Amino acid sequence: MDAAEFRRRGKEMVDYVADYLEKIEERPVYPDLEPGYLRDLIPTEAPCEPESFEDLMQDVERVIMPGITHWHSPNFFAYFPAASSYPAMLADMLCGAIGCIGFSWAASPACTELETVMLDWLGKMLQLPECFIAGTHGHGGGVIQSTASEATLMSLLAARCKAVRRVQAVESERSESDVLSKLVAYTSDQAHSSVERAALIGAVMMRKVPTDEHFAVREEMLKKMVEEDKAAGLIPFYFCATLGTTPSCAFDHITKLGPLCNKENMWMHIDAAYAGSAFICPEFRPLLNGIEYADSFNFNPHKWLLINFDCSTMWVKKRTDIIGAFKMEPLYLKHENQESGLVTDYRHWQIPLGRRFRSLKMWFVFRLYGLKGLQAHIRKQVALAKEFESLVQADNRFEICAEVILGLVCFRLKGSNELNQNLLKRITKSREIHLVPCQLSGRFVLRFAICARTTESRHIQRAWRHITQLAFELLQEQPH
Amino acid sequence: MDAAEFRRRGKEMVDYVADYLEKIEERPVYPDLEPGYLRDLIPTEAPCEPESFEDLMQDVERVIMPGITHWHSPNFFAYFPAASSYPAMLADMLCGAIGCIGFSWAASPACTELETVMLDWLGKMLQLPECFIAGTHGHGGGVIQSTASEATLMSLLAARCKAVRRVQAVESERSESDVLSKLVAYTSDQAHSSVERAALIGAVMMRKVPTDEHFAVREEMLKKMVEEDKAAGLIPFYFCATLGTTPSCAFDHITKLGPLCNKENMWMHIDAAYAGSAFICPEFRPLLNGIEYADSFNFNPHKWLLINFDCSTMWVKKRTDIIGAFKMEPLYLKHENQESGLVTDYRHWQIPLGRRFRSLKMWFVFRLYGLKGLQAHIRKQVALAKEFESLVQADNRFEICAEVILGLVCFRLKGSNELNQNLLKRITKSREIHLVPCQLSGRFVLRFAICARTTESRHIQRAWRHITQLAFELLQEQPH
Repeated sequence: MDAAEFRRRGKEMVDYVADYLEKIEERPVYPDLEPGYLRDLIPTEAPCEPESFEDLMQDVERVIMPGITHWHSPNFFAYFPAASSYPAMLADMLCGAIGCIGFSWAASPACTELETVMLDWLGKMLQLPECFIAGTHGHGGGVIQSTASEATLMSLLAARCKAVRRVQAVESERSESDVLSKLVAYTSDQAHSSVERAALIGAVMMRKVPTDEHFAVREEMLKKMVEEDKAAGLIPFYFCATLGTTPSCAFDHITKLGPLCNKENMWMHIDAAYAGSAFICPEFRPLLNGIEYADSFNFNPHKWLLINFDCSTMWVKKRTDIIGAFKMEPLYLKHENQESGLVTDYRHWQIPLGRRFRSLKMWFVFRLYGLKGLQAHIRKQVALAKEFESLVQADNRFEICAEVILGLVCFRLKGSNELNQNLLKRITKSREIHLVPCQLSGRFVLRFAICARTTESRHIQRAWRHITQLAFELLQEQPH
Repeated sequence: MDAAEFRRRGKEMVDYVADYLEKIEERPVYPDLEPGYLRDLIPTEAPCEPESFEDLMQDVERVIMPGITHWHSPNFFAYFPAASSYPAMLADMLCGAIGCIGFSWAASPACTELETVMLDWLGKMLQLPECFIAGTHGHGGGVIQSTASEATLMSLLAARCKAVRRVQAVESERSESDVLSKLVAYTSDQAHSSVERAALIGAVMMRKVPTDEHFAVREEMLKKMVEEDKAAGLIPFYFCATLGTTPSCAFDHITKLGPLCNKENMWMHIDAAYAGSAFICPEFRPLLNGIEYADSFNFNPHKWLLINFDCSTMWVKKRTDIIGAFKMEPLYLKHENQESGLVTDYRHWQIPLGRRFRSLKMWFVFRLYGLKGLQAHIRKQVALAKEFESLVQADNRFEICAEVILGLVCFRLKGSNELNQNLLKRITKSREIHLVPCQLSGRFVLRFAICARTTESRHIQRAWRHITQLAFELLQEQPH
């Protein structure tokens, strides 16, 4: 395919994309097929000769679309949102064309420098303390990771490295493996599975801190565990706090947990993967109070800030902490400017070596929406969640299971777990809306998350009518 | 921005992309600016109100383009290629629009299933043994990782987990941390820095195996180290072989190393990040002989197979080995079909949880190029490298420093390292072509890699004239 054909096909694809998103409501939100459906629909081997673009696009409708869970349908209320906007898609086209691999400053200076400045822009939108902003006299700065899982892992590895050095500085005879075997990390029992996995990868112990009746970690519980562990000869070194847990969007008490971590020389990482985007609104910013105690902070603009996956933004208070764990310099990656002290080589900040020019997406979205446009998006989605919450509260067959703070509503039918499991099964099978469950204090709970950018009040109202209709049928069938 | 404006702006962007790539030769391949150039060119904060698309695109030329190292210029010969093609860019547009996050089968069945089948297609193009192909009676299959670094890390973690279990099955009283402290991994002294880093992350020892005069690991050297380590009470568990090293594109002797690893119960991972794409040509496939002994294999179609970053393909012989290290199932990620045994949930195969619909890029490229088109691309680039090699060989001031097998030529002026460092400095400063150095047996060597899809014989000829002109000037200035 030459440039001339790309001009033609590219414009057709732009229309296909716009058509898909404009008419997405007409498609069932969740596919109706069995595992393994796709293999029989296409050949067993790649073609030897080139095929036509027309045939390929016909197969997109025949093979791909029937197997899509439509995350951008306004009837999709599952998991958490996956951000999507036209400005981000335009930026991604440009990113693909430039196609640089930005592992070092020299590999494409604009790729590194725009990222640093965009992380500053976003950090200022969130009113992060100055120590996290690169363009200041502080020692901090930001980076784009692929996912929150990687940000958590990077923070844990940096903390591990720092802890080993600190112990060995005092007890020089202790081996690294002996120190490692004594390190202990902590996180909420509500934390995302990726936190536990980070500890597994890093080969350190991780303990789950029990949460209070609001599913939040409180200072007392962590303090008790830390003291027990220290008494047993272990070395507490890391706490991953969550702001906006995946099951119920709960917030750990970081204003109290922060000082405890600082006092105990424990790295505090804050995972605000979903909730972080809301902190650009002054009314939600208090939820981030306590950030000043954190060593690192991460959230996913690719969830709720209209920037398509992947774009997980992470800030650290001390750049040297995060790059210290990793710095290796083979000759083919050295370049003239790296000794100037001005240069960031982002490969030292992350697990992969290669990286796309993802900050273009931030730049396009920030400029084409403006801060006000982004705030309006957050506020609208929170209002929709509140609207759904009111509908649930007005129906005494149902109950709300966790405080609704942002765009997630946890609810259930009053009654058994089995009853709620059956309700969810019927919802899933109907394919009119899509949602997923969670478990809160042993109870099976339905999660209703406002996801698509185009979700409006009418979708909420229709979803609720649908849920109550299915619940009515289900309750009718129950033996009295 | 609504759909109507996206239709208009998207088509403008398609033209911008085509213009950029058609006229890329007119731009200097390497930027002429100082670190920190970008910050002063844009505001210190995001705008409050939305800005216009016209202003943004003007800033792309004013702010971004002067800071780009143009990886797709036919005058770019640095690092290794970053793949790029129009079909891959079209697929990426579709991927952005669908915008599903494919962590589980249910999160978008097509995303998971197309990936499995595309990895089978590609595996068959490479003539991988059947045990690596998912659609067979074997236990293997493939997955797309973001980068080779992540593939290496995943293989090391899977091997670590397997080794710990194996030791503890025999010596049940041994603690995990004791076993970990005895594990030892191996790789070539020519291996990529990401291999050493994987061991650092996984908290296991890694030893570098010295290479022979062709920069390859031979069986004898690994055997000697393994025996010494076993005698010292260590537990050899992992060897990362390289096919096509980064400095010089050398090939470890896997037909001999494989049986050794199998005998010693060591996981053999093969990193063929760059060279792997060439194995779709029957004449280069013998370089992969020995793959049948490997536990896992990885290469980067995003380097040399016309599929834009990121797309790093990895195959394992036993799916259970790789998912065994990680499987955790929070309720919000459970779905109805996962117990059927037919379903792959790719989140268990990788470090991140989220993932894009990257297999669309493979599907578009394979179908629109056909196997023959892809083979033609590889063959053309190898021929260009051979052409450059002949030019170097015909000039007795220069020498070739490693056998030219694929698209990389390592060469230098006969003389001191300093002389060659000066030559490279002049090349970089001239900005007509771009290349990076490596170190081979203590010698400073220039790497000339055929990178851009559009590189032709005339670019090779011109590059050589340019290099010899600079060399001539440099040698003139030397004291005799």
